[in-house]
Amino acid sequence: MPSQSLDYIKSTIKTIPNYPKEGILFRDITSLLENPEAYQLTIDLFFEHYKNRGITKILGAEARGFLFGAPLALALKIPFIPVRKPGKLPRETFSEEYVLEYGTDKLEIHTDALTPEDKVLIVDDLLATGGTVVATSNLVKKAGAEVVGAAFVINLPDIGGLARLESEGIDCYCLTDFEGH
Amino acid sequence: MPSQSLDYIKSTIKTIPNYPKEGILFRDITSLLENPEAYQLTIDLFFEHYKNRGITKILGAEARGFLFGAPLALALKIPFIPVRKPGKLPRETFSEEYVLEYGTDKLEIHTDALTPEDKVLIVDDLLATGGTVVATSNLVKKAGAEVVGAAFVINLPDIGGLARLESEGIDCYCLTDFEGH
Repeated sequence: MPSQSLDYIKSTIKTIPNYPKEGILFRDITSLLENPEAYQLTIDLFFEHYKNRGITKILGAEARGFLFGAPLALALKIPFIPVRKPGKLPRETFSEEYVLEYGTDKLEIHTDALTPEDKVLIVDDLLATGGTVVATSNLVKKAGAEVVGAAFVINLPDIGGLARLESEGIDCYCLTDFEGH
Repeated sequence: MPSQSLDYIKSTIKTIPNYPKEGILFRDITSLLENPEAYQLTIDLFFEHYKNRGITKILGAEARGFLFGAPLALALKIPFIPVRKPGKLPRETFSEEYVLEYGTDKLEIHTDALTPEDKVLIVDDLLATGGTVVATSNLVKKAGAEVVGAAFVINLPDIGGLARLESEGIDCYCLTDFEGH
């Protein structure tokens, strides 16, 4: 593990207390995006980890999943599939509902975005409960394709998403851990 | 102008008639993202056009602006500033309202994202009315920085956004034109 690189990436992520509500520590990746060296290093670490895994497509959910999934797809020279909220994709879609703190939401991909031969990596900025990743994984299954793993810049270990994803058989790679909620 | 490259990029963009409503021709960039060669070529063309312009930061509005703005910022080794809908940025923000077909919406950036020395490029997938770009440009002005230009994969010339942006003094670079609405 290139621990010095990981420490550097972690140092560029700001923590904002009491956002979006009292008691929550918000981990802010905009400060990472504003540091070109740290941002490129993040993509490079993902690239090194996944370059020989036979991944054929990357899925990233709007909006922050685009920020890491799309550059990684370009580096790996494979397609990037944007996972979107309802009403954003113009062609026929698979749709998957997931539970939020209050209520539910949906994620979608085009039905022709994946084939049964595809080996998919899911990329997002942050792993909290893992709810959107499970929903994205279910979209991949609806298309008959395989989820090879999921990659995150930040893991919040105290929330337990990692254990949930591993229990679903999704192999995870997280660059940094941030304690607390 | 590398017209063969531009023709190739244009050929990867799908047109979906009557989406999101009757009579509209929707230009779908997901098919470009699914073609790694065309996607990289798009970023390369932007890079070649802007590499010696003294641009210090790139702004892209969620969600599709992230898909082209972030990889270009990485290529130029400069910060990427995500322009977001309200309630997404955790620190103090500048906010700018803009008009939609029905109603209004807002875009925001962190107040510390730009300095008066910054020369900013705005990047988006598609130029229609130019409303979000004018709003983004106003955010840049609120921070005291300068908009050097705006770059788009697709221009819809029949809607007139290009003339509107040029009349606001925003120099535009569009890779492809698609006639019709």
